[in-house]
Amino acid sequence: MQLNPFIVRPFVERALAEEIGPGDTTGGFLLEGDEEADGQIYAKDRFIVAGLPLAEETFRVLDPASVLVREVEDGQRVEPGQTLLRIHAKVWALFAGERTSLDFLQHLSAIATSTARYIEILKPYPRTRLTDTRKGVPGMRVLQKYAVRVGGGWNHLFGLHNAILVKDNHIKIAGGVCPAIEKLRAKAQHTFKIEVEVESLEQVREALEAGAEIIMLDNMDMAAMQEAISLIGGRAMIEVSGGITEEKLERYAQLGVDIISSGAITHTVKAVDISLDIGDIKPSARREIGQKQELVAGRR
Amino acid sequence: MQLNPFIVRPFVERALAEEIGPGDTTGGFLLEGDEEADGQIYAKDRFIVAGLPLAEETFRVLDPASVLVREVEDGQRVEPGQTLLRIHAKVWALFAGERTSLDFLQHLSAIATSTARYIEILKPYPRTRLTDTRKGVPGMRVLQKYAVRVGGGWNHLFGLHNAILVKDNHIKIAGGVCPAIEKLRAKAQHTFKIEVEVESLEQVREALEAGAEIIMLDNMDMAAMQEAISLIGGRAMIEVSGGITEEKLERYAQLGVDIISSGAITHTVKAVDISLDIGDIKPSARREIGQKQELVAGRR
Amino acid sequence: MQLNPFIVRPFVERALAEEIGPGDTTGGFLLEGDEEADGQIYAKDRFIVAGLPLAEETFRVLDPASVLVREVEDGQRVEPGQTLLRIHAKVWALFAGERTSLDFLQHLSAIATSTARYIEILKPYPRTRLTDTRKGVPGMRVLQKYAVRVGGGWNHLFGLHNAILVKDNHIKIAGGVCPAIEKLRAKAQHTFKIEVEVESLEQVREALEAGAEIIMLDNMDMAAMQEAISLIGGRAMIEVSGGITEEKLERYAQLGVDIISSGAITHTVKAVDISLDIGDIKPSARREIGQKQELVAGRR
Amino acid sequence: MQLNPFIVRPFVERALAEEIGPGDTTGGFLLEGDEEADGQIYAKDRFIVAGLPLAEETFRVLDPASVLVREVEDGQRVEPGQTLLRIHAKVWALFAGERTSLDFLQHLSAIATSTARYIEILKPYPRTRLTDTRKGVPGMRVLQKYAVRVGGGWNHLFGLHNAILVKDNHIKIAGGVCPAIEKLRAKAQHTFKIEVEVESLEQVREALEAGAEIIMLDNMDMAAMQEAISLIGGRAMIEVSGGITEEKLERYAQLGVDIISSGAITHTVKAVDISLDIGDIKPSARREIGQKQELVAGRR
Amino acid sequence: MQLNPFIVRPFVERALAEEIGPGDTTGGFLLEGDEEADGQIYAKDRFIVAGLPLAEETFRVLDPASVLVREVEDGQRVEPGQTLLRIHAKVWALFAGERTSLDFLQHLSAIATSTARYIEILKPYPRTRLTDTRKGVPGMRVLQKYAVRVGGGWNHLFGLHNAILVKDNHIKIAGGVCPAIEKLRAKAQHTFKIEVEVESLEQVREALEAGAEIIMLDNMDMAAMQEAISLIGGRAMIEVSGGITEEKLERYAQLGVDIISSGAITHTVKAVDISLDIGDIKPSARREIGQKQELVAGRR
Amino acid sequence: MQLNPFIVRPFVERALAEEIGPGDTTGGFLLEGDEEADGQIYAKDRFIVAGLPLAEETFRVLDPASVLVREVEDGQRVEPGQTLLRIHAKVWALFAGERTSLDFLQHLSAIATSTARYIEILKPYPRTRLTDTRKGVPGMRVLQKYAVRVGGGWNHLFGLHNAILVKDNHIKIAGGVCPAIEKLRAKAQHTFKIEVEVESLEQVREALEAGAEIIMLDNMDMAAMQEAISLIGGRAMIEVSGGITEEKLERYAQLGVDIISSGAITHTVKAVDISLDIGDIKPSARREIGQKQELVAGRR
Repeated sequence: MQLNPFIVRPFVERALAEEIGPGDTTGGFLLEGDEEADGQIYAKDRFIVAGLPLAEETFRVLDPASVLVREVEDGQRVEPGQTLLRIHAKVWALFAGERTSLDFLQHLSAIATSTARYIEILKPYPRTRLTDTRKGVPGMRVLQKYAVRVGGGWNHLFGLHNAILVKDNHIKIAGGVCPAIEKLRAKAQHTFKIEVEVESLEQVREALEAGAEIIMLDNMDMAAMQEAISLIGGRAMIEVSGGITEEKLERYAQLGVDIISSGAITHTVKAVDISLDIGDIKPSARREIGQKQELVAGRR
Repeated sequence: MQLNPFIVRPFVERALAEEIGPGDTTGGFLLEGDEEADGQIYAKDRFIVAGLPLAEETFRVLDPASVLVREVEDGQRVEPGQTLLRIHAKVWALFAGERTSLDFLQHLSAIATSTARYIEILKPYPRTRLTDTRKGVPGMRVLQKYAVRVGGGWNHLFGLHNAILVKDNHIKIAGGVCPAIEKLRAKAQHTFKIEVEVESLEQVREALEAGAEIIMLDNMDMAAMQEAISLIGGRAMIEVSGGITEEKLERYAQLGVDIISSGAITHTVKAVDISLDIGDIKPSARREIGQKQELVAGRR
Repeated sequence: MQLNPFIVRPFVERALAEEIGPGDTTGGFLLEGDEEADGQIYAKDRFIVAGLPLAEETFRVLDPASVLVREVEDGQRVEPGQTLLRIHAKVWALFAGERTSLDFLQHLSAIATSTARYIEILKPYPRTRLTDTRKGVPGMRVLQKYAVRVGGGWNHLFGLHNAILVKDNHIKIAGGVCPAIEKLRAKAQHTFKIEVEVESLEQVREALEAGAEIIMLDNMDMAAMQEAISLIGGRAMIEVSGGITEEKLERYAQLGVDIISSGAITHTVKAVDISLDIGDIKPSARREIGQKQELVAGRR
Repeated sequence: MQLNPFIVRPFVERALAEEIGPGDTTGGFLLEGDEEADGQIYAKDRFIVAGLPLAEETFRVLDPASVLVREVEDGQRVEPGQTLLRIHAKVWALFAGERTSLDFLQHLSAIATSTARYIEILKPYPRTRLTDTRKGVPGMRVLQKYAVRVGGGWNHLFGLHNAILVKDNHIKIAGGVCPAIEKLRAKAQHTFKIEVEVESLEQVREALEAGAEIIMLDNMDMAAMQEAISLIGGRAMIEVSGGITEEKLERYAQLGVDIISSGAITHTVKAVDISLDIGDIKPSARREIGQKQELVAGRR
Repeated sequence: MQLNPFIVRPFVERALAEEIGPGDTTGGFLLEGDEEADGQIYAKDRFIVAGLPLAEETFRVLDPASVLVREVEDGQRVEPGQTLLRIHAKVWALFAGERTSLDFLQHLSAIATSTARYIEILKPYPRTRLTDTRKGVPGMRVLQKYAVRVGGGWNHLFGLHNAILVKDNHIKIAGGVCPAIEKLRAKAQHTFKIEVEVESLEQVREALEAGAEIIMLDNMDMAAMQEAISLIGGRAMIEVSGGITEEKLERYAQLGVDIISSGAITHTVKAVDISLDIGDIKPSARREIGQKQELVAGRR
Repeated sequence: MQLNPFIVRPFVERALAEEIGPGDTTGGFLLEGDEEADGQIYAKDRFIVAGLPLAEETFRVLDPASVLVREVEDGQRVEPGQTLLRIHAKVWALFAGERTSLDFLQHLSAIATSTARYIEILKPYPRTRLTDTRKGVPGMRVLQKYAVRVGGGWNHLFGLHNAILVKDNHIKIAGGVCPAIEKLRAKAQHTFKIEVEVESLEQVREALEAGAEIIMLDNMDMAAMQEAISLIGGRAMIEVSGGITEEKLERYAQLGVDIISSGAITHTVKAVDISLDIGDIKPSARREIGQKQELVAGRR
C-alpha cells in the first residue's frame, strides 16, 4: 500500500509550517536570492530506511524545481556514512527543509528498524504475523503504519472506521460478549470480520459461541493462553497483544498464534541518526548530479 | 507559557479525524443514541503527567457538553492506579475519544518524565539549563516542547523563525564564521542573540571576535571543551549539544556550561501506560461526579 | 453509527460558505440587527425524514444561541403539513440557513425514503440485506450512507480504505482471481474479509478455490446466478449488484442472496419537498416555544 | 463561464479524501510500486457529457505526470461504448481515481442531459430561458450550475450574495412588498436588479408600483398567471417557478414568460452510466496514446 | 448587511495565528495559569468606530468564557479617551488578543471615518451615492466593505462573481462595446444589470445602443463628462470613477451622477489610534462589570 | 529573508477566492475556452516595487502554464509607464488575476516606498535602524514586513512568539519592571534579548538594574529622552517608538538612538497606482515574449 503524494503532502506542509513560520531568520539573511547547491542526506547509524517519500516531498513543496536522486529505497538497510538521497535545490530550500526531512526519516526509519528486528525473530514461524495497534503519536498514524510495513510488519486497523474490534468498554456497555457480537453482526458492514478482545476462558467461550472471527487474548498468562488456544481449536483467528517483548514474541509464535500486535513499535521510538550536508554553491551543479538525474518538473 | 485551547484544538481535530474517519463502526452500532456515562483516565505506570489540556479538548471537541474534572495537574507525579481525569460524556464520545486522549497523554507524559529525570541530575547546578532542540516528531513540536517545560526543562528555538542559530551548513555557504555573523548582525531582528555552533577552537576564536552572544560546542571531547570554555572566559553564553547522556550531563554542568541541549528528550520517546475505564450507563451520572464538578458549557 | 457533530460540521460549513459567500444581500438589508423570530420546517410530501442533525447544525453554526426543538426524529415517516423542526433564532440566521438546511433534508430524506421502499420489499426475506455502494455524489458519501441506514438499509464499504473489494481492473492487473486473492491475503489487514467481483462461473470457481469470503455476482443472468449460487454452496457470502429494480430485488432475495447492493439509492435521487416558514418578529418568542424547549447553550 | 482548476481542485481533493482515506487497501497491495497503464473512461448510456475537467483533475491531483487525452468535450452527446477520456497514469492513481472521476461525470452529465431535454422543448421560444435555482445538493452548487450551462441552460443566482431575490419570508419580515423593495433599493448594490416572488395579483401590483425589475410568479394557476402577465405588460421581466414539467414548460413559454426556473434539474438527478477500463501494464504505454497526446506536465 | 460571526471568524483566526504562532513568549511566562482581569479598549483619536464584532470575536475565540460589554456601537463617533469595549477574560487572552483586536479596529475605523467625511459632502445631493471598488488590501475585502457601509457609504461589486462590469480589457478581447454587451446579455445571470466602463463619447453611444444599464465614465474631463451625461439622458445609470477628491466629489454630484466610486477609501488608509488597558488581577472582577454584563456563554 | 512560494501561496489563494468566488461572470462569458494572450503590468506612479512574487504566484496558481518575465526586481525604483512584469497566460486567468495581482503590488510597493523615504533620511546615521512594529493590517503581517525590508528597513518582532517585549500591561500584571524581567530571564528561551518599554527615568533605572538588553523609550519628550540615554550609557540598546515623523526621525538619530520603530509604515498606507494591459488574443503569443522567456512549467 503505497504512501502516495496525495497522502503525504499534508504531513509535509504541516511540519514545514511549524519549522518555517514567518521565515528563516538565519538562512534567510545569509543568501542573496535563488542560489542553488547540492545536498546529500546520509546515515550516521545502521538502520532500515523509511520515509524517503516524505523527505523528497519536503524539498518539492519548497522548491518544485528540485532535482532528487534516491541512492537507496525505503526498506533497504544502510550503514553509517551511506548516502540516502541527493538533492539539488535552491539553498533557501535546503536550509528550510533540512530539519523536517531529517525528522521524518529519523522517526520512520526507527520504527521500520525495530519492526524488522521483531520480524527477523518470527521468520521461522510463517503462520504468525506481527502487527501494529492504534497506539502511537496522535496525528501520525498513517505514516507510522507505513513504517511498520516497510519494516516487514503488517497493519492492524487504521482507526475506528475500518475494523470491528470489541474491547472491554464495549462489552460492558453492550452487556456482555454475546450481545455485543450479535448487535454488530446485525448492523455492521458485512465485509468486516468481528474481532473480540477477551480476558478469560469464559469470554473465549462466549466469543466462539457468538461466532467471533478473531479472538484477541489480552494479557493472559501462558497457561491460560494455551488453554484458550486449544479451546478455540482453529474456529477463530487468534491474536495476542500486550507487553510484547522479543522473548514473548517467540513463545507466542511457538504456540501457533496468528497475530501478535505490539503497541510499542509505534508508541516507543528511538530515533536513528541522519544528517544533511550542503555542498558548495555552484550554479552549474544541476548538471553534475549525472546520469541518475531525474527532473521533477511541475511538481506542486 | 500556557498551552491554550487556540493552540491545542488543531492537534486534537487532526488526531480525531484520523481515528474516527467516516465513523466508529464498533462503538457506533452498540449504542442507541445519546446514552451518557462516566469515564476515568488512570495511570498504569509511575510518571509525570503532561497533556491534560489535550485529553480534555478531545472530549470537548466531540461532546461540548462533557463534564471534565481533573484529579491531578500537568507536572504532577502519579503512581499506578491513580486517576488523572474524570469525564462525564456521551458514550459515543467516550468511545471515539479514548485512544486519542490516551495517546496524547502517553506521549507527552513520557517526554515530561524523562526531562524531569535529567532536571533532577542538574539540581545541584543552578547555572546550567537543559533545553530541547528542534529535533523530534515532525508536526508535533509545539506539544513536545510543552512537555519539556512541564518536566522542568527549558525550550530552545521553536523553528527557523524565532532564533539565529548558525550551523555548519550556514558557515559553509556564508564563507566562514565571521562573515556569517556580520551578515546576520547587519540584517536580522535586533531582539535575537546570535548563536553559533562551532567545531574547533579556531571557530570559537572567530565567533568571539565577531561578537557571537552564544557559542554552541558541538561534539567536542572534554579536553577541547574545557579549553574552549576557558577561551570564552564569560564573554558568551556556552551551550553544549550532541549525544547527551546522564553521565555527560553532570560533567558538563560541572564545567559551568550554561545550556545543555538534548535532541533525545523529544526524538526518542518511551510511552508511559495509561488507560480509560468507562462506568455503567447511568443517565443521572452527571450529578454524581460531585463537588469538583465543572460544567464546560458551550465549548465547541 | 451516529452522525455526530464532529463529522457533520464540515459539511454544514462548506454548504453555508457556498450559500452566503460575502453576505446575504437580500435578507441582510431588510434587518436592523439582531431581531429574532420563530421558524418551522415542515413537510410538503410524504417521506421518511433524514438529516435533522444537519439542519440543526446549520442554525447552530450561524447562531450558537439558537433554540431547536425536534418534532420528529430521523427515520420517522411524516405527512404533508407535518412540522419537523422548530427553530428560534436571529432572523438573519433563519434567512441565511433556510436553503442549506432544507437542501440537506430534501436530499437525505429522499435517499432514506427510497431505501425504505426497498427494505419493505425485503421484509419477508430476513437473510437478505440491501446495501449501498460507493457510487453517489462525490464528497457527500458519509451523509448519503447515513441516510441509507436511516431508511433501514446497510452500508457497504465507505472507501478504498475500509474493505477489500477485488474488481475487474484489479483482476486484470494482478493476472487473475487467484493471484489477486493470494497477494491480498498475504499482505492486507487480517480483519477484512476478502470480497471478489466475478463475471463467470469460471471465476466463481477460482474465487472459491482461493478462499474468497464474499463473492459478488456482477450482471449475471438469472440462470448463471442460480448455478453460481449452487456452486458456492454456502462456502462464501453471496452479493449481487448491478441494475437493481424492485422486481429483481425480490427474485434475488428468493434465490437466497445475502447482499443486494444498489448504486441507484445514492446516485439517483428524487428530492422530497420541504419548506421553512418564519413567524412574526417577536422579541419574546424565545419563551413561547414551550415545554419542549431545549437551550443549545454554548454551541459554536 | 469556465470551470477553471482553481475552482475545481477543492471539490476533487475533498472527494478523493473521502475515497482514499488512509490508503487503498485493495489496489495498494496488488502493486509493487509505480507501474503505469492506460485507462479509458467510456459511456454505457446515451447522454450529454459534463464533468471532464473534474475527471481530469482527479488524475492530475493523484499523479501530476498523468497524460490525459479528451476524446469528446463537455456539452457533446455520446453513445454507449463511446470513449470520453484516455488516461495514462500510475496504476495506483487509476485505481484510486476511478470511482471519484466516474461519480463526477455520472452526476454532472445527468444534470446536463436533463437540462438539454428541457432546452430542446424551448427551442421554438427564443425569448424564454430555463434557469436553475439554488436548490440542489448542498456544497455542490458551483458544479451543478456548471452542468446546467453545459446542457444549454442558464444560471439563476449562485447564493445569497449575488442577487436580490425577495421571497415570502422576506416580505413578511419587511412588512410588505413595497417596504421590502424600498429598503433594498436604498441600500443594496446598484448593479443588482430587484426580483420579487409574488403569490397574488395584489402583490404583482405592489411589485410593479415599487419598481421591481423582475417578478417571479410562484405557483399561480394558468388563469392567474395570464392575468398577471397582462398586468405587468412588459414593465418587468417575468419569471415562473415551481413544479416545472415538460408540458408546463411549453405552456409557460407560449405565454411569453422570460424565465422558467426549475429546482428539479439540480435536486433530482438520475445518474448516467459510465465506466473505466484499465489496460495491460505496459511501461512503454505512454508513447502509444498517439498524436493527440498532451503532456500535462507539472500540474499539481 | 450584518457582519455575522460565520463570516468574521476566519479573519480572526488567521490574524491570531500570525500573532501567537507557537506561543506568547512574554505574557506566557509572566502568568501562573488562568488568572483573570478586566480590560478596556479606548479611543485616542476622534473617529467613527468600525470593527467591534471583530474585536469581540478575537477575545471569544481565545477565551470562550470572556465577558464583553460594548460601550458604543459600530457607526458611532467617539472622542479621545472614550471607552469602546470592556472585556473580562483570562489575562493570557487579553495579552494574546490585544494587538489583533486593536489592529482590526484601527484599520476599519479609519475606513469608516474617511467614508463618513465623503458622505457628509454628499448630503445635499441625495441622488448621488458613494461606493467603494474592488481595490484594497487583498484578502480583506469583506471587512473593508463592511467598514464602508458603517461609514454611510454603499458597496460596489464584491468580486468577479457578483456583477457584470465590462472594462477596457474585456472590450478589447470581445472586439468592442456592443459585442461584449450582447454576449453577456445572451449568457449571463438575468438578475445582473450590465455595467460598462467607457472612455469616450463614442463608447457611450455604443453602450447606450447595446442597452447597457449602467455606464461608468472613466477618467473623463468635466466637459466630456457633461456631454456624456446629456447624451445618456437618463437612459442608463451613470457612474464616475477615478481619482476622486473632496472637490471632485461635489462637482460630480452637482452634475447629477448616480454613483461615485472611490478606490482610495479602501486602498489608502490612515489608521486611527486605539489602546487597550488591562486592570488589576482580581478574581472577583467578573462580577464588577455591572448591569450591562452579558455572559457570552459557550461561544467557541 | 526571502518571501518563498510556500509562504506566499496561502495569501494568494485567499485573495483569489475572495475575488473569484463561484466564477468570473463578466470575463467568463466573453471567452470560448482557453484563449491565450500577453499582458503587462506597468507603473502609473513613481515608486519602489514590492510584491512581484505575489503577482507572479497569482497567475501561476490560476494557470500553471503561465509564462512570466520580470522587467524589474523588488526593491527597484520605477517611473510612470515602466513595465514591471510581462505575462503570457490563458485570458481567463488574466481577467481573474488582474485585480488581485495589482492589489498586492499597490499595497506592498506603497509600504516599500514610504520606508525607503525614511531610510534615505537615516543614511547619515549608520548606527540607527528603522524598524516596523506589530501594528498593521491583521493577517497581512508577513507580507507587510517583507515590504519594509524591500524598502531598506528592518523588521521588529513578527509576533508574540519571537521576541520578549515587556510592555505596560505586562509590567502591571507582573508587579513591576524588575519582577517581570526576572521571571522572563528565569524561564524564557535563552536566545532572546529582553526588551522593556519604559515611560519614566525611574523605570529606565529598574530596567538597567534588572539587566534589560534593550530599553524602549515610549513617548518621552526630548529632554527626558536625552537624560534616559545618558543614564543608559551604552549598557543597553535604545529603541524609540511612537508618533515617528520625518523631523523626529532625524532628531532621534542625532541622539544616537539604535532603533526607531514606526507603526505608521505598516498601518497607514497610501496605495501606488499600477495597471494591467491585456494585448490581442494571439495563439502564437507565447513565442513572442522573446529571449527573457522563462517557462514556469509545472508550478502549482
